[in-house]
Amino acid sequence: MSLNKVSPLARPARPEPVCLRLSDIAEMVGGKLTNGANPWITGVSGVRDAVEGDLTFLAKKQYRKELPHTAASAVLVDENEDIDIPGIRTNNPALAFMIVLRHFATAMQRNHELGIHPTAAVDHSAQLGHDVSIGANVVIESGVEIGDRSVIMPGTVILQDCKIGADCLLHANVSLYERTEVGDRVIIQSGAVLGSDGFGFVNEGELVHKVPHIGRVVVEDDVEIGANACIDRATTGTTRIGQLTKIDNLVQVAHNVKVGHASILCAQVGISGSAEVGNRVTLAGQVGMVGHVRIGDGSIVGAQSGVSKSIPEKTFWSGSPAQPHKDTLKQQASTARLPELLDELRTLRKRLAQLEAAMEKSD
Amino acid sequence: MSLNKVSPLARPARPEPVCLRLSDIAEMVGGKLTNGANPWITGVSGVRDAVEGDLTFLAKKQYRKELPHTAASAVLVDENEDIDIPGIRTNNPALAFMIVLRHFATAMQRNHELGIHPTAAVDHSAQLGHDVSIGANVVIESGVEIGDRSVIMPGTVILQDCKIGADCLLHANVSLYERTEVGDRVIIQSGAVLGSDGFGFVNEGELVHKVPHIGRVVVEDDVEIGANACIDRATTGTTRIGQLTKIDNLVQVAHNVKVGHASILCAQVGISGSAEVGNRVTLAGQVGMVGHVRIGDGSIVGAQSGVSKSIPEKTFWSGSPAQPHKDTLKQQASTARLPELLDELRTLRKRLAQLEAAMEKSD
Amino acid sequence: MSLNKVSPLARPARPEPVCLRLSDIAEMVGGKLTNGANPWITGVSGVRDAVEGDLTFLAKKQYRKELPHTAASAVLVDENEDIDIPGIRTNNPALAFMIVLRHFATAMQRNHELGIHPTAAVDHSAQLGHDVSIGANVVIESGVEIGDRSVIMPGTVILQDCKIGADCLLHANVSLYERTEVGDRVIIQSGAVLGSDGFGFVNEGELVHKVPHIGRVVVEDDVEIGANACIDRATTGTTRIGQLTKIDNLVQVAHNVKVGHASILCAQVGISGSAEVGNRVTLAGQVGMVGHVRIGDGSIVGAQSGVSKSIPEKTFWSGSPAQPHKDTLKQQASTARLPELLDELRTLRKRLAQLEAAMEKSD
Repeated sequence: MSLNKVSPLARPARPEPVCLRLSDIAEMVGGKLTNGANPWITGVSGVRDAVEGDLTFLAKKQYRKELPHTAASAVLVDENEDIDIPGIRTNNPALAFMIVLRHFATAMQRNHELGIHPTAAVDHSAQLGHDVSIGANVVIESGVEIGDRSVIMPGTVILQDCKIGADCLLHANVSLYERTEVGDRVIIQSGAVLGSDGFGFVNEGELVHKVPHIGRVVVEDDVEIGANACIDRATTGTTRIGQLTKIDNLVQVAHNVKVGHASILCAQVGISGSAEVGNRVTLAGQVGMVGHVRIGDGSIVGAQSGVSKSIPEKTFWSGSPAQPHKDTLKQQASTARLPELLDELRTLRKRLAQLEAAMEKSD
Repeated sequence: MSLNKVSPLARPARPEPVCLRLSDIAEMVGGKLTNGANPWITGVSGVRDAVEGDLTFLAKKQYRKELPHTAASAVLVDENEDIDIPGIRTNNPALAFMIVLRHFATAMQRNHELGIHPTAAVDHSAQLGHDVSIGANVVIESGVEIGDRSVIMPGTVILQDCKIGADCLLHANVSLYERTEVGDRVIIQSGAVLGSDGFGFVNEGELVHKVPHIGRVVVEDDVEIGANACIDRATTGTTRIGQLTKIDNLVQVAHNVKVGHASILCAQVGISGSAEVGNRVTLAGQVGMVGHVRIGDGSIVGAQSGVSKSIPEKTFWSGSPAQPHKDTLKQQASTARLPELLDELRTLRKRLAQLEAAMEKSD
Repeated sequence: MSLNKVSPLARPARPEPVCLRLSDIAEMVGGKLTNGANPWITGVSGVRDAVEGDLTFLAKKQYRKELPHTAASAVLVDENEDIDIPGIRTNNPALAFMIVLRHFATAMQRNHELGIHPTAAVDHSAQLGHDVSIGANVVIESGVEIGDRSVIMPGTVILQDCKIGADCLLHANVSLYERTEVGDRVIIQSGAVLGSDGFGFVNEGELVHKVPHIGRVVVEDDVEIGANACIDRATTGTTRIGQLTKIDNLVQVAHNVKVGHASILCAQVGISGSAEVGNRVTLAGQVGMVGHVRIGDGSIVGAQSGVSKSIPEKTFWSGSPAQPHKDTLKQQASTARLPELLDELRTLRKRLAQLEAAMEKSD
């Protein structure tokens, strides 16, 4: 399956009844009932919060001990799991849970009224696709294009010549600067800013000149961008977020950064200008990254790390400055032993002095 | 006094004259004049910025040396403080200063015009309490409830079925997603986002599926949420911020997090999914916290720490990864001595080699 | 040249043709052609992204090896650079590039329609200068003053009694609280919040009282403030950002902070209450700073550092807690050697024990 095809799971068509037999769900996720029990399922939830009628699953192995105490009526487990309570065995319980969740989500999904809210300010030159929904107080400037079925929620501002694909969802109070380009099925959470000027200044004696930013931001298909995240436009050229990449809340992506496809940037990550993040990379929360370096495909960087040089592909780095994770672990272990080591050194020094004294005496 | 009662100090009723005798203030805060002086007080300010007529207080002991140079007309000090300048002695000068500040603040408080601004888009099904103030370009969708005397400032968007209590103040350009619930006397600063989707994705080969988030955010009474802070809705169930908890600017609270009551989350803190923060916990600035761990009641975590496992109650942790603060201090002290220790080790090695040589010779 | 004079480069007057001889550009930047070649230049870009007709420059020395492979038609280089490809030699290539960039930027600059958009809610008591541009859905409350030629973009909210100077540019969805004061030629990126309440609370037993914030924010001339950055108002008095200071995205500046002139605060920096940052200071990304400390003029603090005490002027500090950078480097080097050191210590211990045994035997 190619990366630019969205999964059939991506956009539920219309609400369905939210009361299902467990056996129907088993069929839906391609799993098998754990035992003869086949209860009605009316909701989904975590192990701790579940009530009767809920289907639950084990998000973490550490929660298994809570399973006997859950009020849930059934549980999704791995096919190797040996339990005898009502449930479904499947080879990917997390995926199965997500499928069921999506099924229930359709019933709760809000209805986006089609058309343009009378309070929205939409320039006459803007080109809107079929079945779009433009919310209250939205601003859409001249030259903007918006694809079919895209939803722009209240208070969002889309400046001149932006292009937005089909089936996008821009939540409330988002800001898109001029010429920002957004692919299909992109979701942007509230307060996010795309296309702000890069942070570039040149000194000339006492003066500080702003570097004009004439580039833009391109966000490819199936990307999600978190609340209050910021993506700066390029100085010249493009700041690019690749297909399927997911960016969490309050992340900073500076000018001219390139992020590959299917990468994960967790909350409060900060990436400096002209840095590159490869494909399927994970940056854990609060990671910082200097400019002009690259993180190779498939690599992972641990939370709060500071990436100060390029990282090869398929590695796990951590620490500030970041280094291979096993080196970080070794250093942490050694550092924890430091106080004890200082004691040891003091003892050695004493013993050595005694030996030297004895030696001198014996001479 | 129970936690769900707000102090009589919480909402000043109406402006009062802002020229008071020091003795009137002493009565107001339950303190005693330091000496016979009883000047008129016309303002409040810090030690450094004070002008004549101001009442000041010592925010930090380090400022005491600046006291002789302040232009303030009087000072609030601890009852044990031995000074002979005009002022007031009280057992909690910070609280006393706050009471006086609140007294002066009433005079400067803006007047929120009651009713609905003509540019606001308020759905006819929304239920608004008495004496609410709905600002310009506010959007209030269907099914929303807003309690008595609450103020919604310009540009704020409140989506379907949100419930907001009485005496709340939502500043400009706030975004509340569907079904967010906010208690009484809650203050939300500009740009804050409540109810954005949690950051959850499930891999299926090359595909990355978004986990639907059907839960919501509940913010209890007397909470304050900072500018551009983000609180994600739960996957299922509730992300909850407990009574009296205060959240600073740019804080990230992920899906399904539970924060207890009267806790303090300083600026740029990030809390990952399903983590729990107890009651009266303080997380200093830029602390990060992994998912599924818990910080016990009354504990403190130092600035920039990375909480990677649960922390017991009433402890002080710091460092990244976080550990008990005394261990962090010990390690920092040892690490600072490391370069010197390496020298020492080199010397020991040399002396040992000499001893070994001498020993061999003497054999 | 005095700091409060803006450079003639600061605001381009009107579009010019974007096809120039290299020799014209050489004259524009005060440089010299590298050789006889004098191509037409039709664009500007980085070494990697360049196409034919582009002028490029070396942002980093590490890119020099890519110069033979660039598609650019000419390059801006340092006057000492020894190359024989078409280009311009100048004593400040970064400044020269910026000048050319600005030249090209004028052609792409959007046209801000003068006057007040019909959907904007502007209070009749607001005083607007000549040739201002007030965008769609902007809110301007009573008592606000806006200087000549300032541009307020869509969705921005300016509350009572704010003062904004001339030639300012406030991007979309910015929030300015009451009485915020902004100088001339200030740029504020989208989502930024100026004047939010400081994070101050006083405990009284179980209660947590909010400290009223009656101060304000003052932003001096030629400042730039990044997207979703937050600057809190002072408790009393002023939170001040000095002339020419540049603040990046998602930066937090707490109540009563003073930042001097021409300082650089990179993305996600957090400054706690009443701290002071001097003139021409650089805080790299994600630096945190406790309250009530000062960073001296001309100092630099490395990325992710935690400033826990005052820093003298003209120094380079790093680490968490921050210390002089050379100490940090020494410690990092020693720490990297720690595992090896532990092995060494084990060997020494063994050798010492053998010596002691031999000594005893020889007695």
